[in-house]
Amino acid sequence: MFEIRTDLAVETSEGKKDREELSGIRVDKKKAGDDIVITQVNIDTQKAAKTAGKPKGCYITIEAEQMLEEDGGCHREVSKVFSEQLKQFLPKDYSNSKILIVGLGNREVTPDALGPKVLDHLFITRHLIKEYGKYLLEFDKCCSVSGIVPGVMAQTGMETVEIMKGVVEETKPDFVVVIDALAARSIKRLNRTIQITDTGIVPGSGVGNYRNAINQEHLGVPVIAVGIPTVVDAATIVADSFSTFVEGIDWEQGEMQELEEKIREMISPKLNTMYVTSKDIDEAVNRLSFTISEGLNMTFVPDDSHI
Amino acid sequence: MFEIRTDLAVETSEGKKDREELSGIRVDKKKAGDDIVITQVNIDTQKAAKTAGKPKGCYITIEAEQMLEEDGGCHREVSKVFSEQLKQFLPKDYSNSKILIVGLGNREVTPDALGPKVLDHLFITRHLIKEYGKYLLEFDKCCSVSGIVPGVMAQTGMETVEIMKGVVEETKPDFVVVIDALAARSIKRLNRTIQITDTGIVPGSGVGNYRNAINQEHLGVPVIAVGIPTVVDAATIVADSFSTFVEGIDWEQGEMQELEEKIREMISPKLNTMYVTSKDIDEAVNRLSFTISEGLNMTFVPDDSHI
Amino acid sequence: MFEIRTDLAVETSEGKKDREELSGIRVDKKKAGDDIVITQVNIDTQKAAKTAGKPKGCYITIEAEQMLEEDGGCHREVSKVFSEQLKQFLPKDYSNSKILIVGLGNREVTPDALGPKVLDHLFITRHLIKEYGKYLLEFDKCCSVSGIVPGVMAQTGMETVEIMKGVVEETKPDFVVVIDALAARSIKRLNRTIQITDTGIVPGSGVGNYRNAINQEHLGVPVIAVGIPTVVDAATIVADSFSTFVEGIDWEQGEMQELEEKIREMISPKLNTMYVTSKDIDEAVNRLSFTISEGLNMTFVPDDSHI
Amino acid sequence: MFEIRTDLAVETSEGKKDREELSGIRVDKKKAGDDIVITQVNIDTQKAAKTAGKPKGCYITIEAEQMLEEDGGCHREVSKVFSEQLKQFLPKDYSNSKILIVGLGNREVTPDALGPKVLDHLFITRHLIKEYGKYLLEFDKCCSVSGIVPGVMAQTGMETVEIMKGVVEETKPDFVVVIDALAARSIKRLNRTIQITDTGIVPGSGVGNYRNAINQEHLGVPVIAVGIPTVVDAATIVADSFSTFVEGIDWEQGEMQELEEKIREMISPKLNTMYVTSKDIDEAVNRLSFTISEGLNMTFVPDDSHI
Repeated sequence: MFEIRTDLAVETSEGKKDREELSGIRVDKKKAGDDIVITQVNIDTQKAAKTAGKPKGCYITIEAEQMLEEDGGCHREVSKVFSEQLKQFLPKDYSNSKILIVGLGNREVTPDALGPKVLDHLFITRHLIKEYGKYLLEFDKCCSVSGIVPGVMAQTGMETVEIMKGVVEETKPDFVVVIDALAARSIKRLNRTIQITDTGIVPGSGVGNYRNAINQEHLGVPVIAVGIPTVVDAATIVADSFSTFVEGIDWEQGEMQELEEKIREMISPKLNTMYVTSKDIDEAVNRLSFTISEGLNMTFVPDDSHI
Repeated sequence: MFEIRTDLAVETSEGKKDREELSGIRVDKKKAGDDIVITQVNIDTQKAAKTAGKPKGCYITIEAEQMLEEDGGCHREVSKVFSEQLKQFLPKDYSNSKILIVGLGNREVTPDALGPKVLDHLFITRHLIKEYGKYLLEFDKCCSVSGIVPGVMAQTGMETVEIMKGVVEETKPDFVVVIDALAARSIKRLNRTIQITDTGIVPGSGVGNYRNAINQEHLGVPVIAVGIPTVVDAATIVADSFSTFVEGIDWEQGEMQELEEKIREMISPKLNTMYVTSKDIDEAVNRLSFTISEGLNMTFVPDDSHI
Repeated sequence: MFEIRTDLAVETSEGKKDREELSGIRVDKKKAGDDIVITQVNIDTQKAAKTAGKPKGCYITIEAEQMLEEDGGCHREVSKVFSEQLKQFLPKDYSNSKILIVGLGNREVTPDALGPKVLDHLFITRHLIKEYGKYLLEFDKCCSVSGIVPGVMAQTGMETVEIMKGVVEETKPDFVVVIDALAARSIKRLNRTIQITDTGIVPGSGVGNYRNAINQEHLGVPVIAVGIPTVVDAATIVADSFSTFVEGIDWEQGEMQELEEKIREMISPKLNTMYVTSKDIDEAVNRLSFTISEGLNMTFVPDDSHI
Repeated sequence: MFEIRTDLAVETSEGKKDREELSGIRVDKKKAGDDIVITQVNIDTQKAAKTAGKPKGCYITIEAEQMLEEDGGCHREVSKVFSEQLKQFLPKDYSNSKILIVGLGNREVTPDALGPKVLDHLFITRHLIKEYGKYLLEFDKCCSVSGIVPGVMAQTGMETVEIMKGVVEETKPDFVVVIDALAARSIKRLNRTIQITDTGIVPGSGVGNYRNAINQEHLGVPVIAVGIPTVVDAATIVADSFSTFVEGIDWEQGEMQELEEKIREMISPKLNTMYVTSKDIDEAVNRLSFTISEGLNMTFVPDDSHI
């Protein structure tokens, strides 16, 4: 009835009971360890993409309750699972590839700072390999890793994809990994879910607007997007609450219309500029930025003891 | 029906139609310029304090649409009105007083960084006056201003009031001004409302828990609290939406109970750790921290050209 | 005798008594107001460029004692002078041009944060003009301003010029303005000197290494570099002290050699990784970032009251 | 001949050849592992304190080349040695004590941010123990740790010791640990030396000014100061260079005086507001803040897996 915004593919198929709606979407769930659940969603057809409001492609979601807690070693387990799943999107012999990692988002806004903070902890090797060669780094296998924090449009006046296109053309990476904070539909997924996808990402996206997508079509090289939901749209939380609420009540036609109108009023333009986030979001983003950066480091610069 | 959380006295009397509920509360509204509305709420009796969920005392609220916009001079008007209203809480001859200004909140969390950011822009004079005297500062009238950003309990392990008590006893200011980001009930008040009160403040307060209040009773000197609402509790926004929604519908008794239960489920413990804030909160907090600090500087160090 | 590092053209001609050394270099000094001195250095020939250790071109230096003080209005005077001098490097009818402003340096290192901090205060208009057109901005004359903080090589693994080339090719600005913190030879020029030049800039430059220069040759559009010296190389300060010290003493040949050796030992590799900066560098960089950004804003977005 | 500033006791006895000068000072050196050197300096008499320009007491210095490198596990070794040495200053049965840890310095100035950054990574337990008791923390032995970042006098208008006195009186810790960035005499000790002392610390100290010392005399409880040198005074580096330089040359009396005068000119008031630091100071301070905080955590909250 109302537009529900989510960046998580795993949430688009939830609540759809109709078989037809789900045709073209394959969902596969499995466990990794006690606490970690991995869900793979494949959107196979254009029609399914339209239904789901997400581009065709593969979406892997890692969910782990432990991500909500301060880590005493355990987040390394999540980093490992993340690294393994990430490799599914890489070519088999990626170990000498050139990778550009992009930290999307606004460092000044706590729940949006995930991308920039991940970049703070990465092993950046491209300039070292260029200057000293791999021999001097004493790595057998070590990717050439470069990184950039492009900033958001209000700061740069440029679409992120414009900046990325320029940098990609100039430095010619084999593929691009973008890191971003996402919006979920449900608060119960905040800060405890990692999504990896080969479809790229649309910064500040509303549904259906792919003009500025950071994806293979626009950049010319494969783009893997990694994200963690840290916010829920305020309008979504209200609309979603209402849906649950109204369900199961036997409304008359007239009442139903009046209801809809009331909800529309509440979800005013004001609410559309608001989001919901958790009170401990500073600690969560710090913690999660290490979980992701460790996973990236163990994937691309496997033996870190020499840097 | 459900607990509505707000730090704004002006919002506690809203929606109360019953005359009796409002006895002991005086509300007075006036305009300042085209755009600025000043509301004074006096809570006069203990009973009214209990009804309102706020301590007895005087609360002045300044509301101005212009605070939502990037400033090209206009926020100076708000700073001036704020300074004038602040003076109502000061003794007539305060101009040589010793003031301790406290920036509450967590600098790492964007909507909670207001207090620390205000402190960044203050003219701090106490050490200069101590070393050089007023003569050298070339001020006729200049308060001795000191400032501190105590941090939040998760960072310090101490109640803010413990830190403040120690500092007040040691440095003996004539009064204390605390700056904090507040929670409003309505998103339409966010980032455009300043509240000044002589009742002090309860950090991270729920309603009714005054154990750790930063107020005259605990510090031994008058405490003026200045705040701007930058968040709405997520539970409050959902509960409040429902109230509006349910109103005017002719529910049967059984339906009503079922309804209440459903809402309680939605406002789960999870939602209580969440808040709603605006997407441009970083720019808003930066802007507002200057509005407040300019108002404080023009109040306590009137002629700033000599520092 | 020893390599003296300075990014200021005005310092390269100092202490050269020999006429021949100065041939090809024109120096012109004038006053602006009581306190501001403007020096224009033109390096006209390739031979002069080699002597000076600076590329051929025009260098304007603005020096003002007041830049060292907290501003109560006066830094606006410097911003104005800076804006006027900057215009000398712009085409007459630049007022509808497309400008890309680049904040070089490392935000995490206080004296190197000038570039990134200037970018924080700029009016960025490119995305607004693209979306709404100039009409809606209510400007007759307003440049299309975009901005980027590319980061330093240790963070990105890329030469800044690589990033810039990509972004310039993609967004096609008419010219580029780069902002950077500089190294001076003399501590008395720190934090009180602005240099503007049409020669571009070499990030982290030693003398004579132009491979990575951010200049018109590499970017394909004119590049104006704006800088303020915030550090002195530690080796330079020691070497320079010695020069002054040794001067005028009547050394014997053998003593002279022994001396040179001693100095070389002192200016060990260790000292080459060190720099000198002022104790109040945080306040200085904050203050100066506003002086520069105000100058840029009044140059490119003349009437700021509408944004 | 010229005042040499250093916060390191280990540097005050260097270069003193005269036996008498060293009476009352005991120096003891030993190795810990391959790379770590521990030096204990005891200043036993008031006369020795005057000669050394340091208060009577015990100073332990840990020096390790590895601290200069990015850590892949090895900085844990330094943290362990630091923890062991720190325990020498603690009572045997400290394991249930109440400790207040203070992060001195200015977070906005990179080489001065050590104290505040160490505080960012500490396990703060006081509030948890107060609320839940030790049982719930599942620790047998766990100190009650509180922490504060008081800020510097330009920000607060108060002497740090004033703030500390208030907080100590209010919260009654058994002892205080203060963390601060120090000034060394020699650049070769920067970022690779930890000093622990029971004499407390004088913030922004020149030699001989103990009025504002943060020590047991002023706070009423034992104060252990932990510091790492991150800067060298610019005047010290120039004066020290000259000493080395002039040594061994057979000066005539007249020359010597002329020399002294020249040096005095060079070490102008300007130079006294300058310091020398390393180009990678941001990475060094980040790295070292973890080395210190890990050492503190393993000392006061031995088993961290439960928080």
